[in-house]
Amino acid sequence: MPAKRTVLFVSDGTGITVEMLGHSLLTQFEGLEVREITLPFIDSVEKAETECMPRIREALEAGNGVPVVFSTLVNSEARELIRGSGALIFDFFETFIDPLEAGLGIKSNHTIGRSHSSADKQEYKARIEAINFSMAHDDGASHRDLAEADVILVGVSRSGKTPTSLYLAMQFGVKAANYPLIPEDFERKSLPEVLKNYRKKLYGLSIAPERLREIRQERRPDSEYARLSNCRFEVEQAEIMMRQEGIHWINSTTKSIEEIATTILRDIKLQRHVY
Amino acid sequence: MPAKRTVLFVSDGTGITVEMLGHSLLTQFEGLEVREITLPFIDSVEKAETECMPRIREALEAGNGVPVVFSTLVNSEARELIRGSGALIFDFFETFIDPLEAGLGIKSNHTIGRSHSSADKQEYKARIEAINFSMAHDDGASHRDLAEADVILVGVSRSGKTPTSLYLAMQFGVKAANYPLIPEDFERKSLPEVLKNYRKKLYGLSIAPERLREIRQERRPDSEYARLSNCRFEVEQAEIMMRQEGIHWINSTTKSIEEIATTILRDIKLQRHVY
Repeated sequence: MPAKRTVLFVSDGTGITVEMLGHSLLTQFEGLEVREITLPFIDSVEKAETECMPRIREALEAGNGVPVVFSTLVNSEARELIRGSGALIFDFFETFIDPLEAGLGIKSNHTIGRSHSSADKQEYKARIEAINFSMAHDDGASHRDLAEADVILVGVSRSGKTPTSLYLAMQFGVKAANYPLIPEDFERKSLPEVLKNYRKKLYGLSIAPERLREIRQERRPDSEYARLSNCRFEVEQAEIMMRQEGIHWINSTTKSIEEIATTILRDIKLQRHVY
Repeated sequence: MPAKRTVLFVSDGTGITVEMLGHSLLTQFEGLEVREITLPFIDSVEKAETECMPRIREALEAGNGVPVVFSTLVNSEARELIRGSGALIFDFFETFIDPLEAGLGIKSNHTIGRSHSSADKQEYKARIEAINFSMAHDDGASHRDLAEADVILVGVSRSGKTPTSLYLAMQFGVKAANYPLIPEDFERKSLPEVLKNYRKKLYGLSIAPERLREIRQERRPDSEYARLSNCRFEVEQAEIMMRQEGIHWINSTTKSIEEIATTILRDIKLQRHVY
């Protein structure tokens, strides 16, 4: 096994952005084994000194290659300190802020974090409302206020509706309900009655029967519910129904939650409420 | 009102990373009014031509300043095409991949998107399990399997427990339950019985009474529940109880969901299951 190289994500905020960008770059290096350390809220040179520098020194001494630091630090003193550490530094703020100032012809604030303006408050409210809505309308739990939904996801049990609804709400402030298609619907050969009023809001998720079987098997081992032949039947019937009803649907099998949610957002051309 | 400058987020993946990084840079330019367009899944030069170029040309013709493109495109042809458009381009992939190759001494794959390896499948599973757990243990809904929780958030109604729990599950694969502290607990002057077995897992959220009042007022206008004096009383009692019980807590008033979740993750030194 190759030695693991240390990668540090250092941010004066949550570190979530710098982690995501760092990850997307690191996935380009197949076989690279890394040990990841995230250090959020490094908003002063003191914190850089006490919280980052020891971790970098430790990694240098471990001898598994020069540690890599992905950072986004507005504080230039903190940046300079880390730059002198001997690690390989990629600071996103520093890299882009100067060319962005030049291109826009405006000086930046060089301030840490988002301001908490009234626009933020509106976004926060929209986001919380969407999360509450999606929670209350998970798995067909409530028919109330379905007219307020931005989208209603349909599909067989365990096709990915719940995490997708929550992600749409959390990330984009979209009010996403979800409603299962179940064997009774297939026998009746028609959509659940309540959904017929909201045809334009429906969006389908399908899944490979083999993958569905795996997921259901974990949940209810050796049940009829998890049997491959049953999974095949349900998926086939659901796809027939969605086709007949003119419901746009995608296959979620090899997609991440982010990919499914983003595809839906693009397809339904939703007005998102959170940026 | 100043004209709005067009900002495009262009990605061969979901665009979520590039949006987040672009936003964090743009918040540095106070007063800059932007119109944002996200174009995900631009994974070929054809899509760059048909989906991006018309939007850039349109923005150039609108005359509100040169449009800004934040992109992350592995496909170099697509990048070159957009580079020739006349927009101001910041491509994260291009900017960092060469220095990263040099620093690591490894060539990158130059491939689009994550590979769907077995490690990804494990992460996916952990993430879905955490989401299901957090949904099932929202607002004290279930006492079953609380021993499996990585963390149990406590606090008065509407202090931010639900969105934080879901975010911890979604982003970090953390099994986060949440349990409300209610007037009955304050009268009895003790924690809900079921929580006493899990003291080490408890983490508190508090909130400014004035902010709590605003949030509750939206939910149940002019109720006793939303009255400022009641909000003051509940917050005070909850803080007294958390202090007595030795529960670490933070104030959520001016924090985003991401900030609260990241702070909790740092404080409890959790083993996260998703990267």
